[in-house]
Amino acid sequence: MPDAKLQSVLSSLSQQASELNALPSICTMPDARCVKLDTNENPFALPAPVMECAVAALERQYLYPQDDNISLREAAAKAYGLCRDQVIAGNGSSELLGLIYKAFLSPGDAVAMISPGFAFNRKLATLQGARFLEIPLTEAYLLPTEQLLFGPAKDAKFILLANPNNPTGMFLPVAEIESLVAQSDRLIVLDEAYVDFAPDNALRLLDRYSNLLILRTFSKSYAAAGIRIGFGLGHPELVGRLRNLQNVFNMNVIGHAVGIGILSHREAYEENHIHIKRERQRVCVALSQLGFSVTPSNANFLLAQVPPGQDGTWWQASLKKRKILVAVFPEDGLENCIRVSIGTRAQMDAFLTAVRDISGRLQHDPGR
Amino acid sequence: MPDAKLQSVLSSLSQQASELNALPSICTMPDARCVKLDTNENPFALPAPVMECAVAALERQYLYPQDDNISLREAAAKAYGLCRDQVIAGNGSSELLGLIYKAFLSPGDAVAMISPGFAFNRKLATLQGARFLEIPLTEAYLLPTEQLLFGPAKDAKFILLANPNNPTGMFLPVAEIESLVAQSDRLIVLDEAYVDFAPDNALRLLDRYSNLLILRTFSKSYAAAGIRIGFGLGHPELVGRLRNLQNVFNMNVIGHAVGIGILSHREAYEENHIHIKRERQRVCVALSQLGFSVTPSNANFLLAQVPPGQDGTWWQASLKKRKILVAVFPEDGLENCIRVSIGTRAQMDAFLTAVRDISGRLQHDPGR
Repeated sequence: MPDAKLQSVLSSLSQQASELNALPSICTMPDARCVKLDTNENPFALPAPVMECAVAALERQYLYPQDDNISLREAAAKAYGLCRDQVIAGNGSSELLGLIYKAFLSPGDAVAMISPGFAFNRKLATLQGARFLEIPLTEAYLLPTEQLLFGPAKDAKFILLANPNNPTGMFLPVAEIESLVAQSDRLIVLDEAYVDFAPDNALRLLDRYSNLLILRTFSKSYAAAGIRIGFGLGHPELVGRLRNLQNVFNMNVIGHAVGIGILSHREAYEENHIHIKRERQRVCVALSQLGFSVTPSNANFLLAQVPPGQDGTWWQASLKKRKILVAVFPEDGLENCIRVSIGTRAQMDAFLTAVRDISGRLQHDPGR
Repeated sequence: MPDAKLQSVLSSLSQQASELNALPSICTMPDARCVKLDTNENPFALPAPVMECAVAALERQYLYPQDDNISLREAAAKAYGLCRDQVIAGNGSSELLGLIYKAFLSPGDAVAMISPGFAFNRKLATLQGARFLEIPLTEAYLLPTEQLLFGPAKDAKFILLANPNNPTGMFLPVAEIESLVAQSDRLIVLDEAYVDFAPDNALRLLDRYSNLLILRTFSKSYAAAGIRIGFGLGHPELVGRLRNLQNVFNMNVIGHAVGIGILSHREAYEENHIHIKRERQRVCVALSQLGFSVTPSNANFLLAQVPPGQDGTWWQASLKKRKILVAVFPEDGLENCIRVSIGTRAQMDAFLTAVRDISGRLQHDPGR
């Protein structure tokens, strides 16, 4: 029986909202016994003093979180050498990306992303009814600056790039990013999610260019993906506009406490970062010896082209049978790749054992 | 010196975003020594087993939260006698309100709210470039159903009401709400933030009407305002559309753990709710004896018209000098009122002591 009230309600949806179907519920839960190397988490505990901040915050659970994330923004400003009004704090940098899309894109507008890049951006563009332009890096893996300035992306409302790139892990020299920011009058959104695993960062450009917005997250280098802490760093006028679009109480008291705790104890993560870089190197060498072609990485993951004969999806499925989760990508040129996060030594041993096992069986039965 | 890049970036903002100025940072921090009775928090600890869930979740902090809030939605569905696809979970019901505005309102559209109501809605309408219509309750404090169906609000994309109402605390019989929902083809958003302090709720209407969306929050009756947990309950097709607009990982692992913990231990709050109703009655009687005119309340707060001679703002300031925070409202007819949250016995004693002190001084020096 048609439901007239439902049809009437759905007919009141805005045009963009009406174009998106109801989201089906995902029925498969991830298997907790798997070694999870598919989303670049950093599987280490919070430093003890940060954990203490978090537990103390749980005892203030009945109070609304502090308005406008003031203390967290002040702590981030201090850590990054900025002023408070240059900082917006988000429930993960994913919230901040959503705000940027909302602020700049009306239906029919365009946004440009350097590809390959973070696929989540495509959905954000769809939600605004905007066109999503993917501009590939040059063959020499450099920024396609000419294309961004004068090519099909010249009318994009803003340009997104990530450094280090995800999923390649490659790091562009900051000078190259500066050259783009200096030549462009549009907003450049630079996602530095993985920058703590890289040799440099673009923070120093903020003083020089008001068209640069840097995104940071504590999901990767600070092992807090589950808490949702992200920052946008940029010109106070731009940051203030984005804050004005932000929903009230966007972060909870635990997000505030863990964020401030981490910013006060960043030195406690040095060993973690050294560990990840060391494991990254060890796994890179091991995969290369097994016939994989590994992209040099400045992040907490490796993009590895699998040996000839099978594609990335086949490897992903074979590893999953052995309870190892890795990521694959549908984009052109990435079909033969897997992306593996760098975790604990035990996790990486389990991964390499599984890869060796699969490789060995392939050699005995290459038809599989 | 004009900053050409900044001007260029700002000129790329969408029309609605460009109409909102940069948000100034609030510089005054609330005084932690104050008795905070201005935002209807529920100043009690989490039940011990819920606290244990939260601490355990802090040890999974490095993993991304579960996708699409599945387990939390399943727990809420079970508690409310619904199916999972009738439930959307939010980072507070404030996030869900934002989604509803985004889904239904384009620039120039209208939304109608029964007034007085939650002022936050006005800002959400502004963010969408929408007109915000406030439709007052009738003089007999009943729903203005005729006006909503045929009056100035007849073209509103959806209608908002809260039961119990904030800030009056009044509770409308569910039959009256049913009558509106039955007669209207538009979406009715019913905010039941305070319903656990009231004698009835509208959950049973969800089976009968697909144009009803009920909002719930754990900020009030479950003492978790700092954690940000809210739900939208409605038709699966509508809920699925809203979920599709929701940002990824909108709640953190603590929000999930505390939410599921509370849903499993709702009986642990019975004593809390009895306490609040008892204190509400005690404070109501005491204020009446002091010359206040108190609206009968079904929420965890009281709206009290102050004695003749001074207005609500004067009382708010006088109480603040004594470290007691209460709320006031600029709306017509509310200028002479204060709203006081019901907290612990000690907090309410402190409030009443301050009120008696102020009243006594006024009698000695009525010119103040």
